[in-house]
Amino acid sequence: MGFNQPQQLFDTVIIRLGGEIGIKAAWTRKLYERRLISNVKAVLKHYAILYESLNRRFGRLYLKTSQTQSTAPKLAKVFGISSVSPALETTSKLSDILDKSVQTAGSTFKKGSSFAVRCRRVGRHAYTSQDVCREVGRQLLNAYSERKLRVNLKNPDVTLSIEVREEKAYIFTDVIKGVGGLPLGAQPKVVCLLNGDISSPVACWMVMKRGCPILPLHFEETSFNKESTNRALKAAKTLFEWTIGFPTKVYIVSHSSNLAQIEQNCPKKLKHVLSKRIMYRVAELVAETEHAEGIVTGDSFNEQAEKALHVLSLQDEAAKHFPVHRPLIGLDATEIDDLARKIGTFENSPMQRIKKRKTTPKKSLKIIKLKEVEEAEARLNIDEMVEASLKSLRIKYL
Amino acid sequence: MGFNQPQQLFDTVIIRLGGEIGIKAAWTRKLYERRLISNVKAVLKHYAILYESLNRRFGRLYLKTSQTQSTAPKLAKVFGISSVSPALETTSKLSDILDKSVQTAGSTFKKGSSFAVRCRRVGRHAYTSQDVCREVGRQLLNAYSERKLRVNLKNPDVTLSIEVREEKAYIFTDVIKGVGGLPLGAQPKVVCLLNGDISSPVACWMVMKRGCPILPLHFEETSFNKESTNRALKAAKTLFEWTIGFPTKVYIVSHSSNLAQIEQNCPKKLKHVLSKRIMYRVAELVAETEHAEGIVTGDSFNEQAEKALHVLSLQDEAAKHFPVHRPLIGLDATEIDDLARKIGTFENSPMQRIKKRKTTPKKSLKIIKLKEVEEAEARLNIDEMVEASLKSLRIKYL
Repeated sequence: MGFNQPQQLFDTVIIRLGGEIGIKAAWTRKLYERRLISNVKAVLKHYAILYESLNRRFGRLYLKTSQTQSTAPKLAKVFGISSVSPALETTSKLSDILDKSVQTAGSTFKKGSSFAVRCRRVGRHAYTSQDVCREVGRQLLNAYSERKLRVNLKNPDVTLSIEVREEKAYIFTDVIKGVGGLPLGAQPKVVCLLNGDISSPVACWMVMKRGCPILPLHFEETSFNKESTNRALKAAKTLFEWTIGFPTKVYIVSHSSNLAQIEQNCPKKLKHVLSKRIMYRVAELVAETEHAEGIVTGDSFNEQAEKALHVLSLQDEAAKHFPVHRPLIGLDATEIDDLARKIGTFENSPMQRIKKRKTTPKKSLKIIKLKEVEEAEARLNIDEMVEASLKSLRIKYL
Repeated sequence: MGFNQPQQLFDTVIIRLGGEIGIKAAWTRKLYERRLISNVKAVLKHYAILYESLNRRFGRLYLKTSQTQSTAPKLAKVFGISSVSPALETTSKLSDILDKSVQTAGSTFKKGSSFAVRCRRVGRHAYTSQDVCREVGRQLLNAYSERKLRVNLKNPDVTLSIEVREEKAYIFTDVIKGVGGLPLGAQPKVVCLLNGDISSPVACWMVMKRGCPILPLHFEETSFNKESTNRALKAAKTLFEWTIGFPTKVYIVSHSSNLAQIEQNCPKKLKHVLSKRIMYRVAELVAETEHAEGIVTGDSFNEQAEKALHVLSLQDEAAKHFPVHRPLIGLDATEIDDLARKIGTFENSPMQRIKKRKTTPKKSLKIIKLKEVEEAEARLNIDEMVEASLKSLRIKYL
């Protein structure tokens, strides 16, 4: 008996929705499901995946397509999906289930494998789930006696799952974990400060996962050295692989003249705070124009002076109209690195995290008072700087 | 050959510091290490663990104690520790290493086990790490031939690890994962709004893990129904198991009269925002008095009207002097549940998360404008309410 390609065998992708969606009130759930379907369709269109139908039944989505193997991993990256399985659809007639189970095992069970059969049923049928498991198990052992299969219910090499749903049944062996979260667009847009570091793209992704479409805002520090900008754009490109169907634009603002003015007129220890305060002011104006509802940054707690708590407070003070969200505030550096690897932005980040930390000044934590900041800002023409920054704003479509 | 209790065999706990500590600049690292040592000592004292010495060598801590098995899991809960191993100390003489390895395997290797020997060396010795592995492996097979041990370097049932450190050597079989993060006290204190739900204790723990000691602040909603207060206190008690050596007090404020006044004078849809704004104002005053540097809440993004982004912004607007941190903002409900289980506060939480969600009003998301909030607050005597709340403040020592 030859091995078929599962690609040709399977004809359906079962798409399971995140548990959080199922427990919402009816009205919210419907909204979220509709949003998720539209995001899934955008992915199918983007990758030119041919499909026959996409139906919502029993709290799941069923995608009829012959390209199940290539489609499933792409759908696993859609926020709001908890898992996907390439599957073979058949009727709920026991003889059909047996036939298709034998067929599925034929192309997926390797010689010497231990296996289990699991069955779940929704609807009224002439058989129980147990009947199905027993009969399928028996037939598999008969049909593939030359493969020396063994039954192992506790810790099998491979599991053949059968889901009977009223007049239909689905047979599959793989459950690919999805990214989870809420469907993108379920929450309002947010403006995300994006630079070329490890953290800020992770912060973007964390709020995307909670349903917020992002408007990445990058501040270009010099007009000569484009390395940080290039890294930010590359990170944005990777992030947009998770937001298919949504705009892929990055807002870029020139920050070099702001920095120069700060350097000329203000004490060195205030440079970072003053720079961040201008960024927040610009971010608020972008948020207002674009009807976004918050500002997101990649800050986390660590010893670096510019991220110390009292400095964050001085920064927040400049954002008068929108909340500043720091989704990484409770994460370890190693957790942030792991997320960056999962997202795909780690390779792209500057690899000198360790080096950089080691070369920070030995006693950099200086206490800064709001009064000092306000005095320094009085020496600058903040309104003009913010206006000039906004004028320099360009939108790059990726 | 009889099995000794490893408890009696081992005489040292190897304490490995989180990777984040090692990469800090020298000055910060020293500060963090000192803080960690003092936190470890507090745990030893709290649990009345007898020990001979606690030394820092080669970027690790070595605790000499006969109570290794009971001590190790307690130290694994200390923030800043990445892992611990009960170990047997000996000299770096090869004959000693061989003897003690045979002794360790004697009380830890079960019949039929596959095993591997690993060795790492720091310092100059007459042998290589490979020599040690080879010779130890040979001797174990000889000494315990009746146990039918097998060597398996790839995927062994048990690993005997040998760390040679200059004139000493440590032999161990277990590596217990620690909680990681930064040592508590490495960052400033924060005021944490703590109620009886699942999320707020998790938010507390996330910032604790980043080094911030917490000041839990609980708002009592009614003076009759103490259930929520009891749950908050129980959660605080569990949290304090992670903060041994730090104060175990909870700040409790009566909020019922505030709620009554809001209900009497303001539109219903503003109730939550107005209530939260008073909480933030009180929290700011507590933070100021206690020299804390931020406010922490358990908010995360989801559809619930009172946590919608624009509402968070209206809440933040009331906190004028301190940043509001929401460490759960990027987490899924399931991730928050998993963390609560790990922390030990899950069982204590109201178990109606699902039920509660299902019964939220169907269309609860109402847009609220800052102007409405300000108008409503003008009808209240906010300053007086905040002052009365502060007067009602009592501190409970757990």
